[in-house]
Amino acid sequence: MLKKIVLTGAAGRLGSILRAPLAAMCDDLLCTDIVEDIADLPANASYARADIADYESVAALMEGVEMVVHFGAHVDEGPFEQLLGPNFVGSYNVWESAWKAGARRIVYASSIHAVGMHKRQDFIGLDAPHAPDTFYGLAKCFTEDLGKMYWSKRGLESVHLRILSCDTVQNARMLGTWLSDGDLLRLVARAIDTPTTGFSIVYGVSDNDRCPVDNAKASHLGYRPQDNAEIYAAQILATEGAGDPTDRAQMHHGGPFAAVPLGQGGATAAAKGND
Amino acid sequence: MLKKIVLTGAAGRLGSILRAPLAAMCDDLLCTDIVEDIADLPANASYARADIADYESVAALMEGVEMVVHFGAHVDEGPFEQLLGPNFVGSYNVWESAWKAGARRIVYASSIHAVGMHKRQDFIGLDAPHAPDTFYGLAKCFTEDLGKMYWSKRGLESVHLRILSCDTVQNARMLGTWLSDGDLLRLVARAIDTPTTGFSIVYGVSDNDRCPVDNAKASHLGYRPQDNAEIYAAQILATEGAGDPTDRAQMHHGGPFAAVPLGQGGATAAAKGND
Amino acid sequence: MLKKIVLTGAAGRLGSILRAPLAAMCDDLLCTDIVEDIADLPANASYARADIADYESVAALMEGVEMVVHFGAHVDEGPFEQLLGPNFVGSYNVWESAWKAGARRIVYASSIHAVGMHKRQDFIGLDAPHAPDTFYGLAKCFTEDLGKMYWSKRGLESVHLRILSCDTVQNARMLGTWLSDGDLLRLVARAIDTPTTGFSIVYGVSDNDRCPVDNAKASHLGYRPQDNAEIYAAQILATEGAGDPTDRAQMHHGGPFAAVPLGQGGATAAAKGND
Amino acid sequence: MLKKIVLTGAAGRLGSILRAPLAAMCDDLLCTDIVEDIADLPANASYARADIADYESVAALMEGVEMVVHFGAHVDEGPFEQLLGPNFVGSYNVWESAWKAGARRIVYASSIHAVGMHKRQDFIGLDAPHAPDTFYGLAKCFTEDLGKMYWSKRGLESVHLRILSCDTVQNARMLGTWLSDGDLLRLVARAIDTPTTGFSIVYGVSDNDRCPVDNAKASHLGYRPQDNAEIYAAQILATEGAGDPTDRAQMHHGGPFAAVPLGQGGATAAAKGND
Amino acid sequence: MLKKIVLTGAAGRLGSILRAPLAAMCDDLLCTDIVEDIADLPANASYARADIADYESVAALMEGVEMVVHFGAHVDEGPFEQLLGPNFVGSYNVWESAWKAGARRIVYASSIHAVGMHKRQDFIGLDAPHAPDTFYGLAKCFTEDLGKMYWSKRGLESVHLRILSCDTVQNARMLGTWLSDGDLLRLVARAIDTPTTGFSIVYGVSDNDRCPVDNAKASHLGYRPQDNAEIYAAQILATEGAGDPTDRAQMHHGGPFAAVPLGQGGATAAAKGND
Amino acid sequence: MLKKIVLTGAAGRLGSILRAPLAAMCDDLLCTDIVEDIADLPANASYARADIADYESVAALMEGVEMVVHFGAHVDEGPFEQLLGPNFVGSYNVWESAWKAGARRIVYASSIHAVGMHKRQDFIGLDAPHAPDTFYGLAKCFTEDLGKMYWSKRGLESVHLRILSCDTVQNARMLGTWLSDGDLLRLVARAIDTPTTGFSIVYGVSDNDRCPVDNAKASHLGYRPQDNAEIYAAQILATEGAGDPTDRAQMHHGGPFAAVPLGQGGATAAAKGND
Repeated sequence: MLKKIVLTGAAGRLGSILRAPLAAMCDDLLCTDIVEDIADLPANASYARADIADYESVAALMEGVEMVVHFGAHVDEGPFEQLLGPNFVGSYNVWESAWKAGARRIVYASSIHAVGMHKRQDFIGLDAPHAPDTFYGLAKCFTEDLGKMYWSKRGLESVHLRILSCDTVQNARMLGTWLSDGDLLRLVARAIDTPTTGFSIVYGVSDNDRCPVDNAKASHLGYRPQDNAEIYAAQILATEGAGDPTDRAQMHHGGPFAAVPLGQGGATAAAKGND
Repeated sequence: MLKKIVLTGAAGRLGSILRAPLAAMCDDLLCTDIVEDIADLPANASYARADIADYESVAALMEGVEMVVHFGAHVDEGPFEQLLGPNFVGSYNVWESAWKAGARRIVYASSIHAVGMHKRQDFIGLDAPHAPDTFYGLAKCFTEDLGKMYWSKRGLESVHLRILSCDTVQNARMLGTWLSDGDLLRLVARAIDTPTTGFSIVYGVSDNDRCPVDNAKASHLGYRPQDNAEIYAAQILATEGAGDPTDRAQMHHGGPFAAVPLGQGGATAAAKGND
Repeated sequence: MLKKIVLTGAAGRLGSILRAPLAAMCDDLLCTDIVEDIADLPANASYARADIADYESVAALMEGVEMVVHFGAHVDEGPFEQLLGPNFVGSYNVWESAWKAGARRIVYASSIHAVGMHKRQDFIGLDAPHAPDTFYGLAKCFTEDLGKMYWSKRGLESVHLRILSCDTVQNARMLGTWLSDGDLLRLVARAIDTPTTGFSIVYGVSDNDRCPVDNAKASHLGYRPQDNAEIYAAQILATEGAGDPTDRAQMHHGGPFAAVPLGQGGATAAAKGND
Repeated sequence: MLKKIVLTGAAGRLGSILRAPLAAMCDDLLCTDIVEDIADLPANASYARADIADYESVAALMEGVEMVVHFGAHVDEGPFEQLLGPNFVGSYNVWESAWKAGARRIVYASSIHAVGMHKRQDFIGLDAPHAPDTFYGLAKCFTEDLGKMYWSKRGLESVHLRILSCDTVQNARMLGTWLSDGDLLRLVARAIDTPTTGFSIVYGVSDNDRCPVDNAKASHLGYRPQDNAEIYAAQILATEGAGDPTDRAQMHHGGPFAAVPLGQGGATAAAKGND
Repeated sequence: MLKKIVLTGAAGRLGSILRAPLAAMCDDLLCTDIVEDIADLPANASYARADIADYESVAALMEGVEMVVHFGAHVDEGPFEQLLGPNFVGSYNVWESAWKAGARRIVYASSIHAVGMHKRQDFIGLDAPHAPDTFYGLAKCFTEDLGKMYWSKRGLESVHLRILSCDTVQNARMLGTWLSDGDLLRLVARAIDTPTTGFSIVYGVSDNDRCPVDNAKASHLGYRPQDNAEIYAAQILATEGAGDPTDRAQMHHGGPFAAVPLGQGGATAAAKGND
Repeated sequence: MLKKIVLTGAAGRLGSILRAPLAAMCDDLLCTDIVEDIADLPANASYARADIADYESVAALMEGVEMVVHFGAHVDEGPFEQLLGPNFVGSYNVWESAWKAGARRIVYASSIHAVGMHKRQDFIGLDAPHAPDTFYGLAKCFTEDLGKMYWSKRGLESVHLRILSCDTVQNARMLGTWLSDGDLLRLVARAIDTPTTGFSIVYGVSDNDRCPVDNAKASHLGYRPQDNAEIYAAQILATEGAGDPTDRAQMHHGGPFAAVPLGQGGATAAAKGND
């Protein structure tokens, strides 16, 4: 049982899924986000609004923290200036303040977009070099390198969850990239309960038949997904038909993020097939 | 639903297994082989005799084709002169005529014999360099390189199924190399329904305990075999006893093909334990 | 059915588990160890006391042997002088006398401690270079190299089982390293029944969620474990709590052996959490 | 002959060395830095003061630029807040404004400190993963990833010169890491005159006997250093004597940067042996 | 001193350079080509016209041959039908007849076009997978695989010289790819005088600063080129100026062959900058 | 200037070459060997007879030692029992006593025979797995693993010189494997004067055109050989003629050691071409 967990991005889609399970793993869960308040908090959880782009605002949350679950960020591609605060400086703020407060580990919502420009037919492992597809992905690269440095220089552990697609399966790409809510919880649980992690990266993806990434190098975390998007395959494939092998979005791990112009929002929605 | 599939080698053992399932995936299935006729065709299938070693003969089949399933070849080792037509020139004829007709993809029956001279104790992946064990295997190498070039230069997709052993389990080697009929169908289905494949290679083998090859690099195809030759292990091993570690056929992926003299027929039968 | 198996270390914990199953695989099972006698031998088994550090003593057992299952050794770290006889010279004695007697193969109890100084977060395969953590591990390195040479120079096969942890699950490390008794038997069975093995290495570990090593390169042996230490995870993790990332034993594959001073006994007990 | 080159950091030690040679390679050399003015400019060069942390200030320089030689940055470890402007945002400003202006390529002064936490005995190539040793090094990682993305998404070329040590040889580490002024010029010349570079990285180091990094993957640039720090070896080694293998600065590529506390200035001076 | 060498393609540009040096290495040099006759033969050389696409024609030359230097082929891209005889069947004819005649080794003029679709910025070694850029390159792939098989199955040695560019330096690409006539002779000499070669591949390229390929894996041949195209760099670069990073010919090892449509002649001339 | 060096094997061929240069690098050089005495000692050198197979005998030499140059061993293949004392136990004795005495580093005469069963056409680096060709080579494997363990567990540095061939060039193999006396001295000098080495391996071979091994991973030692056996090539090759590709000695790095029966002396002489 942990003493205190700080959860950033607690009001977001994934943060909302995580609140109850995280609360069950610790004495005190401190939720934070940029919104005014969160309605349905677990009994042992509290909420404190904070702008993660502001160091003091973040540091104020960290007293006595043992583990930070850092999911707060601008969750879409956008102009660099827009992402600089929450996605770049925000990561620094979390790491620096957590370290100063004596935290043991940070669990971070990284993304496939840190390596999104790799070809989809390349079954990439966790040692694939960074290949960001957007400023959004570049911020994930930055944070992974930051976390690696805090581990090697200061001994602060971190686990970077490179989430592929977190939502209902809506297109052929997601037959491979889907991370079910259940598997997300399993993944976060392992990132927390593993006694020592050092600096670790792991892909956040379910046990899909068509999974295009390799988690072998994260075996020490013991993450074993149980869901499989293949149950949606017949229906999805009947609708979508043949792909276009000259389409960047089809041929890269980043999907629509690999095709969207740098700095232009809407990529997240595109990835889900809405446009 | 595809418009038109052309199936070569439609009268062969594997072609016969494939006719009905392929017919179910398209409006028109055009079957071809060197025999005079095929008796039991599916309702939406037709048959046209052709010699794949003859360009015009092949090209005449391709009008309106969307996908070619190319299983036609001389299926045994033999003198180079004997294989030159069906196995080398035939591949060129299929690729060139399919490309001219605007086909989207070719699914090809390649073989373990393209890499048969690798040591069996080397768990080879899809990036193992070519190491043909026979002229038969050399034709598979030729066709894989041809397919790679048509993809990189002309954008014509192809999926190369390196089949290990396709028949009932008859000897200890096949405990590892068996591809069940059911898994063959699963494999061909994935080679067809995957929206984009580019140039892909995948081993055609069941989920055998003793499987000696690694399909990780083909994960984007989502092929997951369901059968396992281990159910035959007790019976086979009781009969066969100890192997001879100085026997080329025992120690290489190609099995009997690794031991047969170049150009000498009968290797296919030997691989099944008949002699 | 084999004619004759010689089992060394037959009185040890693992040897005791192996006696009955091995007896079922051959006409005659000759058990040997340093103790005076073994009480409960299978019907077709006999016992002969021998000091494996003494060549003649070992050679006397080998007449007509087909396979040696070599589990006899000092099973703990200790001063080099103490291990020299049983763990180094003993291996030579077994290989040399087995070869002279015309044996076909040796199945050897190697250990994770041959590679124990690798970082636990490195998911190591069977090609990870030797990195012994103790004189005990160094003897395993020596024997693996010896076995490789007898294969390449003399054609004597051997299978080296790098056992991780063989006992009940007692701490967080063993959630990853556990080899159940059932899986040990499956592993030894495959090391024996595989028709040809040449020189092979394989990790002896169950199908644990948190398994930190990769057996892909041993796929030709067809070893598929069926047990999983994860069933003990909740209970163990509740007790043990957070790990210390500055502790050598936490961060290396060798566990307590990676932390123990060279030559100092007690590491085996420490690995099981007894001290 | 290029039309216009923009040189940032033109008043720095390396910028000062580069001004004349760059002026000889183009019609107009526009020098910029944070200082008021530069006295000794080549005839076809002009100076414009700019703060690279300010986008408009940088963008104003880029009209008609063909190539940017970007050496401007805070050249020492320091607090993240201090480096954020010049070393992180500054890189974005240069890339974004150069791309908008239609520049063809950016030549960037990256650093060994992007990979400084690798062990010195690991002969690292250009594909070694990022392992920053300081915030200074983290900014180099950020910029390399940024440059890679602008190439893959927008086709803007860049060459990242990972300079090891640029100064007179003052200690044993520099026997391996020295980049002579002459070799710096050769390196920059190749980064500019190579007809196409795409995204390239290359170590900036002389042909030292003890060079600890591998430039093989940059062979297409044709950089061949001609100087060798070994001429200083006898004198340096006589003074320095034995190294301490428990000293982080001795054992990592980053040298003193690998040992300095994060965010603390003075590392650059330490690397030269001044303290 | 060898007894008999057979040189195919003896009337070609490279064959003409090789005649005298080869004659000096053997008692009898038998030259062959498709032309009627060759005027200036060395004293111990003779000429016999032969069509290498015709087996009997080739086999008639092989009596008593010790080594074949096989440079005969259609030396340009062309339709598959045009290359089938000389470049595919011709290779088979040479290997089969040489083996039947008891030859010890074949030295073959392979080409960079066997791997021409690799990106030029990838410093490719001899283990880069085949990636042909043309039917011409595909024939080189075929012959390399053929030679590998004759070695592994029949013990016939062969050395495959992957020549990059053999002519005067005429464009920026050739600054990296040039093979001087002197280095060609050194290369062929080593391919012949090395006591055992097994199956070997080696790039035929001079010691150019900008050499884009890696011969490390051929070190056993001891080929050390002595010329360097960099002496032409200033003049060539002054003329050619900036490259176009969207041009296939600029970005691939195959140069113009990577850009030419499959089957269309003229690629050889384009590679030399004539069109 | 070192205080005290201990040189084992000081009366051997290589030890005799090393005595004077080592004496020049330290205050006191203590020479030891199994012979009664050595006649021509440098002024600051002394001799003490010792049997390295006897711990006390070795330990008595180590007081105040800073560096051990360990060249003492049985220098030929022989029965395991013959090598056990000097080549296995002797290494342990040197490492253990040197560590107890506070030595900083051991420079050890390892050998190509630790990896002698690799194929000669495989250009092997320093990370090639152990593949001993004899008991002699097995002792080198043992000592390398021992040295690695003393470094990782106790921080005792060691440099393992894998000498290829140390004598005059007498056959075609030595054109590739020759280590000149001058280069031996350069190599030992670097093994000593490099400030920190940790655990290092380096091939002892001259800058031969036909050098079959890769020292890239030892670049931090800065060893650059200056001699080249190619000056003997014309004469040697004229005599030796064609090699036999079915001869184990021709096709493996270990040369005659790869072909000699295990345990049979005379391999060293065979390697030099005397029989």
